[in-house]
Amino acid sequence: MTPGGEGMMQGGRVVALCGGVGGAKLALGLETALGSGPDSERLAIAVNTGDDFEYLGLRISPDLDTVLYTLAGLNDLTRGWGRADETWNFMAALKELGGESWFSLGDRDLALHVERTRRLQAGETLTSIVGDMARRTGIRAALLPMSDDPVRTIVQTPDGALPFQHYFVKHACQPVVTGISFAGADDAAPNPALMQALADPQLSAVIVCPSNPFLSIDPILAVPGIRVALQRTAAPVIVVSPIVGGQAVKGPTAKIMQELGLEVTSQTIAAHYAGLADGLVIDEADAADAATLALPTHVTRTLMRSHADKRQLADAVLDFANTLREAGQARARSAA
Amino acid sequence: MTPGGEGMMQGGRVVALCGGVGGAKLALGLETALGSGPDSERLAIAVNTGDDFEYLGLRISPDLDTVLYTLAGLNDLTRGWGRADETWNFMAALKELGGESWFSLGDRDLALHVERTRRLQAGETLTSIVGDMARRTGIRAALLPMSDDPVRTIVQTPDGALPFQHYFVKHACQPVVTGISFAGADDAAPNPALMQALADPQLSAVIVCPSNPFLSIDPILAVPGIRVALQRTAAPVIVVSPIVGGQAVKGPTAKIMQELGLEVTSQTIAAHYAGLADGLVIDEADAADAATLALPTHVTRTLMRSHADKRQLADAVLDFANTLREAGQARARSAA
Repeated sequence: MTPGGEGMMQGGRVVALCGGVGGAKLALGLETALGSGPDSERLAIAVNTGDDFEYLGLRISPDLDTVLYTLAGLNDLTRGWGRADETWNFMAALKELGGESWFSLGDRDLALHVERTRRLQAGETLTSIVGDMARRTGIRAALLPMSDDPVRTIVQTPDGALPFQHYFVKHACQPVVTGISFAGADDAAPNPALMQALADPQLSAVIVCPSNPFLSIDPILAVPGIRVALQRTAAPVIVVSPIVGGQAVKGPTAKIMQELGLEVTSQTIAAHYAGLADGLVIDEADAADAATLALPTHVTRTLMRSHADKRQLADAVLDFANTLREAGQARARSAA
Repeated sequence: MTPGGEGMMQGGRVVALCGGVGGAKLALGLETALGSGPDSERLAIAVNTGDDFEYLGLRISPDLDTVLYTLAGLNDLTRGWGRADETWNFMAALKELGGESWFSLGDRDLALHVERTRRLQAGETLTSIVGDMARRTGIRAALLPMSDDPVRTIVQTPDGALPFQHYFVKHACQPVVTGISFAGADDAAPNPALMQALADPQLSAVIVCPSNPFLSIDPILAVPGIRVALQRTAAPVIVVSPIVGGQAVKGPTAKIMQELGLEVTSQTIAAHYAGLADGLVIDEADAADAATLALPTHVTRTLMRSHADKRQLADAVLDFANTLREAGQARARSAA
């Protein structure tokens, strides 16, 4: 976030940080905006793995899978998770055999979990497996788990601690959240490819996608080294707020913010990323907040319903980053 | 196989030994013939696990699964293996991700493999898992893996040794078989419930189903203790020949017998089980063989196309066992 970086948007790399659905939408917009061809690997997407869990003896990586399916064009648009053209015969048969069934795995989706689990057990890293699967499904961006080590998001509730997917799916976000922690984060090594991308002098922007700050982005920032790398990079760090008109677009973001005693506003998001963000992108519905924010703010439509919406937001975010970087360079030149 | 046993067909237990498809058909016929109600556990079926293998990180038990699906009425009658009303979306997605696909697993079938693997990894025995799944799918007979320890059937070919499923499915039984061995058999413990059933004075018959003697029954007999228990039981041991008119009904039995230098006849089957069988059931097409066989022989239709065929063969086999046992008891009384 130091001003005066040398990166150029045209040739420089972009790193996006994201969780599941909302983040994946902007990641897809960024991939489209940054184009294909020789520059195809310009986008690196660091994905939260704090939601990963073991289920039926399989390793499930909900956010990575959502990003993979979204960028591969395999995601189900109506349901909002999993694969399109899905069937559920595995799950039906599993119930007959007395197996656990609180987390639904579609028949096609299951292939990803079985194959990933097999390759992990054979000693391959999650990064290597995801990279191979991304290539096979035609994804141009680099898909990077935040870490190859286990980090597990734990939600504290009045009735005790819950692993994230138990809170999110099994208990349908009903329990009150009194705290969030990331087990294993202190001992986790950041993804080396992510650290390399963040240290690249050609890095032109870091985009924090409109994912849940507490459940999707904080786990990434909890992995030692990543926060510092974001603070050190010359590229502007742009946060896209997940708040639209005082509400979260999807998921438990607003509910959790209220339970943690936080106002559901752009100000809260800005405060959460203080010392890290160089600019904030907020929705038109919250345009009035812009005047009260201490950091540079860009107002645009952040709701992404269509593919055009995703592309429009990606372009706006990249333009905003460009403006901030050029301003930083001008300041650096005038100070020299 | 000692004459003079005290077992009564009405109340006594029946043990069946079997492999996959052909054996499972007679096992179903036996379950129907022995009826339901308080006597429902009269039938214990010892199933070959020499074909078991690891695939996609999952433990697959082809013969156990065929018997389970057949007795539960879930099997596909047209295809001859796997579940009825099956879909194949998992396999299609797995191929897209670069996974192994030489052994097809249906979406419904997969539930059995995933759940069994999870429970095995949690420390449960195969016997306990299969028993629970059999109950859940409405099976009245006791389904018993021959052993809870790994025994792996290895097929010797001119090009080297092949695990059974590689020979059977991957290489479609094309290689010439020069020998068959059962890795791990010497160190395997027989299923305790099977040993208990075989030692039961109330045991009224042991039925060797019309499965491949070399690939499906021999692995069971290779587990230390089982052959001796069959030799010691007072109940008659009845072998149902898998040969019909000098040919095998299904699978590579005839091909393997020829490659091993054996004639595809009832005589060869009788010789294979010499010292173990008290009676042989052969098909009408081989009726002429009866006169040349040294042991008691019953001729009947052994082809099982319909459910009525299965029941008819089961009744014939049980009646034949009854006759042999009564003759043995008469001999024992006259010797006393």
